[in-house]
Amino acid sequence: MGDLKISPLAPKVSPQLPALNGVRMATAQAGIKYKDRTDLLVMVFDQPTSVAGVFTKSKCSSAPVDWCRKALAGGKPARALVVNAGNANAFTGARGDEATAITAKAMADACGCAEGEVYLASTGVIGEPLDADQFAPLLSGLVADSKGDCWQQAAEAIMTTDTYPKLATSTFDLAGRSVTISGIAKGSGMIAPDMATMLSFVVTDAAIESDVLQSLLSELVEGTFNSITVDSDTSTSDTLMMFATGAAGNGPVEGDALGAFKERLREVLHELSMQIVRDGEGATKEVEVCVKGAENDGAAKRIALSIANSPLVKTAVAGEDANWGRVVMAVGKAGEAADRDNLAVWFGDIRVAVAGERDPDYSEDAASEIMRRDEIKITADVGIGSGEARVWTCDLTKEYVAINGDYRS
Amino acid sequence: MGDLKISPLAPKVSPQLPALNGVRMATAQAGIKYKDRTDLLVMVFDQPTSVAGVFTKSKCSSAPVDWCRKALAGGKPARALVVNAGNANAFTGARGDEATAITAKAMADACGCAEGEVYLASTGVIGEPLDADQFAPLLSGLVADSKGDCWQQAAEAIMTTDTYPKLATSTFDLAGRSVTISGIAKGSGMIAPDMATMLSFVVTDAAIESDVLQSLLSELVEGTFNSITVDSDTSTSDTLMMFATGAAGNGPVEGDALGAFKERLREVLHELSMQIVRDGEGATKEVEVCVKGAENDGAAKRIALSIANSPLVKTAVAGEDANWGRVVMAVGKAGEAADRDNLAVWFGDIRVAVAGERDPDYSEDAASEIMRRDEIKITADVGIGSGEARVWTCDLTKEYVAINGDYRS
Repeated sequence: MGDLKISPLAPKVSPQLPALNGVRMATAQAGIKYKDRTDLLVMVFDQPTSVAGVFTKSKCSSAPVDWCRKALAGGKPARALVVNAGNANAFTGARGDEATAITAKAMADACGCAEGEVYLASTGVIGEPLDADQFAPLLSGLVADSKGDCWQQAAEAIMTTDTYPKLATSTFDLAGRSVTISGIAKGSGMIAPDMATMLSFVVTDAAIESDVLQSLLSELVEGTFNSITVDSDTSTSDTLMMFATGAAGNGPVEGDALGAFKERLREVLHELSMQIVRDGEGATKEVEVCVKGAENDGAAKRIALSIANSPLVKTAVAGEDANWGRVVMAVGKAGEAADRDNLAVWFGDIRVAVAGERDPDYSEDAASEIMRRDEIKITADVGIGSGEARVWTCDLTKEYVAINGDYRS
Repeated sequence: MGDLKISPLAPKVSPQLPALNGVRMATAQAGIKYKDRTDLLVMVFDQPTSVAGVFTKSKCSSAPVDWCRKALAGGKPARALVVNAGNANAFTGARGDEATAITAKAMADACGCAEGEVYLASTGVIGEPLDADQFAPLLSGLVADSKGDCWQQAAEAIMTTDTYPKLATSTFDLAGRSVTISGIAKGSGMIAPDMATMLSFVVTDAAIESDVLQSLLSELVEGTFNSITVDSDTSTSDTLMMFATGAAGNGPVEGDALGAFKERLREVLHELSMQIVRDGEGATKEVEVCVKGAENDGAAKRIALSIANSPLVKTAVAGEDANWGRVVMAVGKAGEAADRDNLAVWFGDIRVAVAGERDPDYSEDAASEIMRRDEIKITADVGIGSGEARVWTCDLTKEYVAINGDYRS
């Protein structure tokens, strides 16, 4: 598909992530689909490591997603993670399950652990058989070469149509020790709740039990990865996994400490999910959609997603056209209660519509000035109740069509 | 927005519609938004005429939609219809209601009927106040000039981003007389169930009661206008109205005669709705999506719409890429029961996936040959039950983005 131009919304500076005790990583060029770039990542945990995960709600989930769900249910700590880019190993039938078994076996042998302690993820084309024999022999060498300070390379190895690697980190005091939460993500298209990660892997050196980790992750995903959409299309492979190595040796994470950890984790997940939106295929604008005044928060989120997924709203944003009528259309089609004659719409802090019609003070120039920005906030008050929601998306450009019109070749 | 290239899927020959007894029409250049083209249509019914209608499910319906709903509830026969293009009179608050009242009053005066016997429709930009005083004075002249054989001009006067006028007709024997059903439609973007008409007006000279007409229309819309989608965005203005003048003087329409009328009406509605899909903004391909093996017909339709509305499926079609993995993705995201390991997908009559993986006989060349056609059929058997559905859409091209990136200017 040729070289992609780096998103104009890419971070100016890629964050430097510190090495994190208890995890080592390595990447390789396995030639699964791409040439002259890395496409295989391993993470190795020296000690049995707490683990939690949230996965796609697709009814056609990929073989690695099925594998991870089963491994998580086994309740064992994690010892390793293997991720490949270029092939999703999704809708690959019995051969897909064989590919996960071959990969897990090779990685378990390399790490000296059980297969059920190995987690797997694959991203790329759906429906192409994944030849695990092509890269499984590389795993023992990768484990041997793995080191702790190659987050940047890790983030690069899992990219598909991403135009930049996605990383976030936070270091803070927790229960008597300095701990770090670091994570990587990939995703650019086929991004929609639930959940819109494509792939994200977060590691902390904090000591924290798997079940606590799981409940934090399940809760925090709602306002982060489950509140972004690029194109309303949900991947078969969405995987967010979190590992806690415990190497920091902190005390029990409960009470205030738990609250502090949760807030830092939320920030890391938010930062990663925003990087996905800002790398949405063909994106030139980041769009934040706020809905208030809905019947309840769930209704607000459905209205917000109706706006954020509307091709007509997204093309208007791409065209820097302050076409707020399309926001009204998207509120109307959401199917949730809305009081047309009490509806108000803002672009940025400019109210463009109020009480069911154009704002009396409407200024096309003022609205257009907002539309020329890189980051656009659209707010709709639907005038019914006190439900609120916030979601993030990007615009829909010709480049999205170009990228996706010929992805496989 | 400049001149639009005529859709490559436009009919080669525009059908010639016969004059239809009991209805007269006229069009004018009112300059509501467009220059140098007609944008105002009136239909006048010499005698009180049976009437039925189906409207948008948007919670933010336009003032004319509200007007028609109220007029229909009044239960009176219809005497006139006024349609303007260029301004939807939607989300225009109290001024919107005033505009409908002014228009209905002027038309009622011109026709010598009650205001509640006048039906209204508007299409175009949402949120701009509609100045009815600009065109209301034209109505009496239009009524005086109206004639019965100007269907083509009528269809042209209601276009917005349409690249061709949409007409369909059927003449057949009914209860002892020859009768005709003729209709026009407009719509190109903001097309999604329910109901994806934008605007359509169908007239028959058959004698048939309003309540019979209404039940036929409500039933037939489901498999026609409610089974097409261009961009998943639902208009605030969707209006399908049907009028029966009774001028043919046929006998009672019941039993076999009712069945025959229904089938011909279904054909006319199908033909009009297909013309809308084939004029979808930027469309280069017509796509028919068939889903079978679903839990029930409703589930099948939701899966079919998930496929038909998927930006990734639609861009793959635009790129002539046989990316059937995205069909699997769209089945998976629909949220309806599907048996991944029993799923099969066809492009045209080529089965590309079966039993949860790529078809053993898969040929990229054969699948690609299908994708190069103008009309592409995608079939998915989701392997659960016997529910079936069929919907129609078009591809998503750069031209859709271009048309909608700057619609208002």
